[in-house]
Amino acid sequence: MSQADFGRLELELAEVEMPGLISCRTEFGPSQPFKGARITGSLHMTIQTAVLIETLTALGAEVRWCSCNIFSTQDHAAAAIARDSAAVFAWKGETLQEYWWCTERALDWGPGGGPDLIVDDGGDATLLIHEGVKAEEEPDPASTDNAEFQIVLTIIRDGLKGDPKKYHKMKERLVGVSEETTTGVKRLYQMQANGTLLFPAINVNDSVTKSKFDNLYGCRHSLPDGLMRATDVMIAGKVAVICGYGDVGKGCAAAMKQAGARVIVTEIDPICALQALMEGLQVLTLEDVVSEADIFCTTTGNKDIIMVDHMRKMKNNAIVCNIGHFDNEIDMHGLETFPGVKRITIKPQTDRWVFPDTKSGVIVLAEGRLMNLGCATGHPSFVMSCSFTNQVIAQLELWNERSSGKYEKKVYVLPKHLDEKVAALHLGKLGAKLTKLTKDQSDYISIPVEGPYKPAHYRY
Amino acid sequence: MSQADFGRLELELAEVEMPGLISCRTEFGPSQPFKGARITGSLHMTIQTAVLIETLTALGAEVRWCSCNIFSTQDHAAAAIARDSAAVFAWKGETLQEYWWCTERALDWGPGGGPDLIVDDGGDATLLIHEGVKAEEEPDPASTDNAEFQIVLTIIRDGLKGDPKKYHKMKERLVGVSEETTTGVKRLYQMQANGTLLFPAINVNDSVTKSKFDNLYGCRHSLPDGLMRATDVMIAGKVAVICGYGDVGKGCAAAMKQAGARVIVTEIDPICALQALMEGLQVLTLEDVVSEADIFCTTTGNKDIIMVDHMRKMKNNAIVCNIGHFDNEIDMHGLETFPGVKRITIKPQTDRWVFPDTKSGVIVLAEGRLMNLGCATGHPSFVMSCSFTNQVIAQLELWNERSSGKYEKKVYVLPKHLDEKVAALHLGKLGAKLTKLTKDQSDYISIPVEGPYKPAHYRY
Amino acid sequence: MSQADFGRLELELAEVEMPGLISCRTEFGPSQPFKGARITGSLHMTIQTAVLIETLTALGAEVRWCSCNIFSTQDHAAAAIARDSAAVFAWKGETLQEYWWCTERALDWGPGGGPDLIVDDGGDATLLIHEGVKAEEEPDPASTDNAEFQIVLTIIRDGLKGDPKKYHKMKERLVGVSEETTTGVKRLYQMQANGTLLFPAINVNDSVTKSKFDNLYGCRHSLPDGLMRATDVMIAGKVAVICGYGDVGKGCAAAMKQAGARVIVTEIDPICALQALMEGLQVLTLEDVVSEADIFCTTTGNKDIIMVDHMRKMKNNAIVCNIGHFDNEIDMHGLETFPGVKRITIKPQTDRWVFPDTKSGVIVLAEGRLMNLGCATGHPSFVMSCSFTNQVIAQLELWNERSSGKYEKKVYVLPKHLDEKVAALHLGKLGAKLTKLTKDQSDYISIPVEGPYKPAHYRY
Amino acid sequence: MSQADFGRLELELAEVEMPGLISCRTEFGPSQPFKGARITGSLHMTIQTAVLIETLTALGAEVRWCSCNIFSTQDHAAAAIARDSAAVFAWKGETLQEYWWCTERALDWGPGGGPDLIVDDGGDATLLIHEGVKAEEEPDPASTDNAEFQIVLTIIRDGLKGDPKKYHKMKERLVGVSEETTTGVKRLYQMQANGTLLFPAINVNDSVTKSKFDNLYGCRHSLPDGLMRATDVMIAGKVAVICGYGDVGKGCAAAMKQAGARVIVTEIDPICALQALMEGLQVLTLEDVVSEADIFCTTTGNKDIIMVDHMRKMKNNAIVCNIGHFDNEIDMHGLETFPGVKRITIKPQTDRWVFPDTKSGVIVLAEGRLMNLGCATGHPSFVMSCSFTNQVIAQLELWNERSSGKYEKKVYVLPKHLDEKVAALHLGKLGAKLTKLTKDQSDYISIPVEGPYKPAHYRY
Repeated sequence: MSQADFGRLELELAEVEMPGLISCRTEFGPSQPFKGARITGSLHMTIQTAVLIETLTALGAEVRWCSCNIFSTQDHAAAAIARDSAAVFAWKGETLQEYWWCTERALDWGPGGGPDLIVDDGGDATLLIHEGVKAEEEPDPASTDNAEFQIVLTIIRDGLKGDPKKYHKMKERLVGVSEETTTGVKRLYQMQANGTLLFPAINVNDSVTKSKFDNLYGCRHSLPDGLMRATDVMIAGKVAVICGYGDVGKGCAAAMKQAGARVIVTEIDPICALQALMEGLQVLTLEDVVSEADIFCTTTGNKDIIMVDHMRKMKNNAIVCNIGHFDNEIDMHGLETFPGVKRITIKPQTDRWVFPDTKSGVIVLAEGRLMNLGCATGHPSFVMSCSFTNQVIAQLELWNERSSGKYEKKVYVLPKHLDEKVAALHLGKLGAKLTKLTKDQSDYISIPVEGPYKPAHYRY
Repeated sequence: MSQADFGRLELELAEVEMPGLISCRTEFGPSQPFKGARITGSLHMTIQTAVLIETLTALGAEVRWCSCNIFSTQDHAAAAIARDSAAVFAWKGETLQEYWWCTERALDWGPGGGPDLIVDDGGDATLLIHEGVKAEEEPDPASTDNAEFQIVLTIIRDGLKGDPKKYHKMKERLVGVSEETTTGVKRLYQMQANGTLLFPAINVNDSVTKSKFDNLYGCRHSLPDGLMRATDVMIAGKVAVICGYGDVGKGCAAAMKQAGARVIVTEIDPICALQALMEGLQVLTLEDVVSEADIFCTTTGNKDIIMVDHMRKMKNNAIVCNIGHFDNEIDMHGLETFPGVKRITIKPQTDRWVFPDTKSGVIVLAEGRLMNLGCATGHPSFVMSCSFTNQVIAQLELWNERSSGKYEKKVYVLPKHLDEKVAALHLGKLGAKLTKLTKDQSDYISIPVEGPYKPAHYRY
Repeated sequence: MSQADFGRLELELAEVEMPGLISCRTEFGPSQPFKGARITGSLHMTIQTAVLIETLTALGAEVRWCSCNIFSTQDHAAAAIARDSAAVFAWKGETLQEYWWCTERALDWGPGGGPDLIVDDGGDATLLIHEGVKAEEEPDPASTDNAEFQIVLTIIRDGLKGDPKKYHKMKERLVGVSEETTTGVKRLYQMQANGTLLFPAINVNDSVTKSKFDNLYGCRHSLPDGLMRATDVMIAGKVAVICGYGDVGKGCAAAMKQAGARVIVTEIDPICALQALMEGLQVLTLEDVVSEADIFCTTTGNKDIIMVDHMRKMKNNAIVCNIGHFDNEIDMHGLETFPGVKRITIKPQTDRWVFPDTKSGVIVLAEGRLMNLGCATGHPSFVMSCSFTNQVIAQLELWNERSSGKYEKKVYVLPKHLDEKVAALHLGKLGAKLTKLTKDQSDYISIPVEGPYKPAHYRY
Repeated sequence: MSQADFGRLELELAEVEMPGLISCRTEFGPSQPFKGARITGSLHMTIQTAVLIETLTALGAEVRWCSCNIFSTQDHAAAAIARDSAAVFAWKGETLQEYWWCTERALDWGPGGGPDLIVDDGGDATLLIHEGVKAEEEPDPASTDNAEFQIVLTIIRDGLKGDPKKYHKMKERLVGVSEETTTGVKRLYQMQANGTLLFPAINVNDSVTKSKFDNLYGCRHSLPDGLMRATDVMIAGKVAVICGYGDVGKGCAAAMKQAGARVIVTEIDPICALQALMEGLQVLTLEDVVSEADIFCTTTGNKDIIMVDHMRKMKNNAIVCNIGHFDNEIDMHGLETFPGVKRITIKPQTDRWVFPDTKSGVIVLAEGRLMNLGCATGHPSFVMSCSFTNQVIAQLELWNERSSGKYEKKVYVLPKHLDEKVAALHLGKLGAKLTKLTKDQSDYISIPVEGPYKPAHYRY
């Protein structure tokens, strides 16, 4: 709590960098559209998120919050919010046990049930409800041998002791969720395909102003930031391997190239591979380059990308990190259980792991979790303002249409004119001036003067 | 015809750079899938197009060809094709009258009617048939005061003298068209929306391996190429204004920035504008910068972007050019008819227009038409191989399904696995190696090992 | 002292990144060339400097050290060195009083007089001796109204109470100094020109492997590092003004451009200005842009660059920082004494200064001192290895030639073959392979096979 | 001669891009400082050179000119000058025999002897006089087995038939030479070292505004220009090997990287190699990469860089070119005499050489000579204005001091204030505004308000 003042100061700085959120306060604040709405968020509890939370409360919502990663909370941000605005269950360096307890606490609004709306990042709040509903039929932590999933099921089971229909009640009340990660959205589409999705969902990740900004420009900023804070390594002259060349990988590769590294990309998708080549990047397999590179960063959203056998072949002090949502891109389990391996903690979130035979070590950041949040402060305010303005708009949409039947138990994206509006809210801060279509031009290309300007399939 | 040998030599060089087309020859050539098919193409008659034409003929097609721009033909390419492979109606520097005559010739396969398939670029072959069908009801060149459109209607009218149902017959025979430009595709979607589209169309432009490659990387290559060949101007240190920041504009802006220019973008779309800002480009209106910039390039696909009043305010010898499909982005009519203006032709496609009052001049490239094709040789072979492999695949698809009813009178895009295949065919030439999903990884992310790897809405 | 273990761990990581220094240990360590030499260093007490110090001790030297900036010490580095290797007088956040006391302590080797050699950065150790010698004639702190200089003279005066000839003795013993900053070197050349230089000096700054690496690539790395750690600001989309386009300014401008900012340069030198233009940067005066930019960084080595009147005109929360050696580039005095100004410390080295009339604030980093050392950890190990290998070689040269008369009381640069050697020691780590001249080629261009490869005036 | 009008039009365009030369006309034209001076130039007869020539004549000089490369003349430029301003002996595609005849003609001012001043590029005019003087003692073309040198000696011998003291007379009259290439300057310093230099020389190449602009930014512009005009090859995605990383190599590597190629550098100098690494470029030997690269460009100023044995190992249609002054960087002799090799001329200056065993070919540009001048139009006007303004200033200096004895038979560089003046003359055109030192700042850093701003050893 002693950090609340510091948090407040940084919050005030961030507000100046987040014009989209501040515009929402100005536009919607007076009418208090969230009056009566309970919002639970599961999203990295950073300074930027604090501005989001206070935008939601400024629009009338009651809010409870937890982080969606054990390392990503900025404690001064959490302190400022806890003191001033909302219930917060998050601190930097949670155990997995604590993490899921926090998630459960954020969802539990007391006797009256759960939240009306969820702001999700990675889908863990959504998952807990879905698993809770399932478990109310048959709660059995022993049904899995995945350690983390056992924790989830145990917490659910313990919670059901108080109210055995807790999650069914929660589901009933819930108006919907807005989700902002590639990973969380993939889960939602899978549930939609399986017919198991329990409430409407808005896919905020695929707003252009989210995936083509936060994922790309955010990572372009925060990968070098995390590397420098964690290791102070000179990036120029080094060989950096970026596993995956999606939006996140594109941002990471651009950052490393710009900083003077030679970049090698690994890809499964021939189209993304060809894009990498057009930017002058080499496309090879991890096996081809594992022993000559200096920095490795996973961005795939898939699992088992860098295995302990890869790490054994790396140069001494090669840096291994992940910027994808989950921590299973790097084989931390294989590393931790490698016979005779020695872990030397340089500083929190920066460990050197030394193999017994070679005495050679690799430096692993944030224990394989999101390095930009574990080792630095995540994405900067301006780009998060784009993402979070989408969140606010999605939450408003779900809440306003809660009785209209507009949204079924499916996954939706925001309409293009709202996406364009988010962008427009961020131009003034950067001194930009838009050109306006004349009526004549508008007719010629059959596009309204006020937009939307592109067809739905446009790729930007 | 004397240039045919030179054309053949360049064709042979281009083949080495066009692995997608050569792969099509290897994969499909033996089965002669186009046996019996007549293909008419309306597409810049360049060396790269020549390799496309000979790929179509290698697969069994008969081909007739015209260019889709009065300046874009490379005469040695036309000569080689005319001598060796197909009927060609195209030369560099056609009049508009000649241009439409060529288009009509390419569509006229004699008594038996028209083509089975059309390869279109900008949609002029498609337009001629649609206008022909309309005109067979009521042919009246006087019905328009657009000079070029009068030429079209006159040519149609004259053609109908021989066979008053010529275009109806053509329409009947036609299996479909594949179209590769943003502009042409927009026309097709408008016709689909109006219910006036007469035959199936495949939108090749929106294959990722077309719009995100040809449009982007092609223009990144060919804008400086055209500028240098036409004017030899030093790009470094100059202020370049790129009107429009779509795929083409992105490529143009990147090229100018990389060459050391300071780049200013004009945009109507706030999302594209925000992308420009994230790359360090300034976003202003043309009016803001018209008197301080050195190079202006239009890429909008819209009309009336740079007007004569803009040009009057420009610095002496400011360069004005267009890389969009049509020549109405720059107000050539306003310039040509400006009282007292003087045109000084430096060399073909490079004119200095001097205003009488200021004695100050602007340099206009390719008379406002596609400057990369008018002043240079268009996009390089490698990236055109991506586009044209999509064309071949689209033509094959239309032809193979000609009797199946799969394609109605609508606009279609190619399925993602074909798009990915086009990319894959181009990786080996650049020395790339793809990573393969394991079965376990494939299950985890629910993506088949062999692709497609991305959902339809993915933006790359 | 509790931080010594942490310091040692980071030292070990740094050693892997500093091949030049480690090579010196391998090559020269066995012969102990510094046996009997006392070395005083006045140079930012960072992890990298710790590796330098332990290289000097590995070669036989006794060492005493202070920092050359009140904010630049990394306490864990100081602790590790103090515990294991040398006397250290430095901590992060010294007062000016403490700073000069530390400098005096580092120079005082007890009754036997001062050091044999000085490693200097900015010239403060050199200055103290020169001022000391002058003051022994007439010590009068009241002779100046510069606050910091009064501290210097007071410390000298107090020291003379113990031994009134202290600085003369020091001067007599001193073999020479090696200096590594543009600023310190300028002072040395001025003293040489005035005939007041008291001992030989080697200008390490103008080794190519120093000024064209540390200054350029070091700042390219550490400016964004400092900005991100201090403010988390998104650099992309912002307007950054870099005052000065020398080696440091070039690195800073490149970093900002690469991160997606729009960069404006201010310069007095038309040649450097033209270089900036060729890279697509705008060159204007500070007055032209003061109210539209977001980030301001001074790199000039001159004083009074950004004055309080400039700061008053800036946008709210504009960031103002300095990466030049001294803190007088930014008018901190004017800011601190501005009537009604309010200082809000966000966190150490990050202050928001709010003007009373506008309520608008600027964010000043590291109190106007070197922001990369105050807000981050300075330059990364690899590039510092280049600089410090020059320092070791210069110290060896001075010491080995201490009796030969080779070096007079003048400023010298290292010969080119040593400069090339420093570079060569750093290639292997980055996987580079050099080409070798054949005898025939060597004859043709009259360059020895083993170098030096360039004439003295070559600019790289 | 029919091209003279076209040349004049391009000359007029170029004048707008060459503010330094036009400023010289304005500043010095009225006083006609070259009144009575005969100037012979041996320098690529391009449009830019034409503006230089007409600047010299505008200042009162009489001029005779030849090119310094058999392919570099732009015939329309030569025609315009020949018609309007000076005697020109140059055309595109000279034989070596014709080339040296032209050089001899340009030096021969008739009975009155030779020129007063020489403008040299590569040193061939200087060489001819030095060899002529030697040959007047003992002219013997059989004394060498170098084919080109035999031509030189034969032309000298034939010339001596008319006047056996021709070259001695020439030497006597000659006031001096200004030379602008790295290669030519190296020759001059060698002659100075040997004591054989016959007249004063000003090294214009090492003006900062020449070597750091023309060599660097000129090549950054003209390498891709030459590649595109000669081959239309897509640069993006390709592997480009740049041999040598001096100023020219830096420009070439930057151009290829920016265009999307992956760049590999070969170097003998460890400092330049380390610079390449810091920019993310790989440094290897030619042998390491000869079989995987697509584009090879030599920039070394040395000979025997790419040998026929290298070319045999290259990929089919690898492009081999040289941008260094002389044509011996590529082993053209080895290629031409390789048993069974077949030369296929695609178009002038673009040849495919096919090896008999593999049927694989390499594409050699401009027969191994300067590809940017052979295949394109050389460096653009703006950067040449910097170089040529140095030439004009150097010529003025030599002429004005012709009787003062200021210049001995040595090599001189221009003083820094003139170098800075050249830069200053080019800022306005690009819209730049310089900052001015205050008196106080000037005192503080001991630099005059009006410059020069840097010490002589400063590297920029």
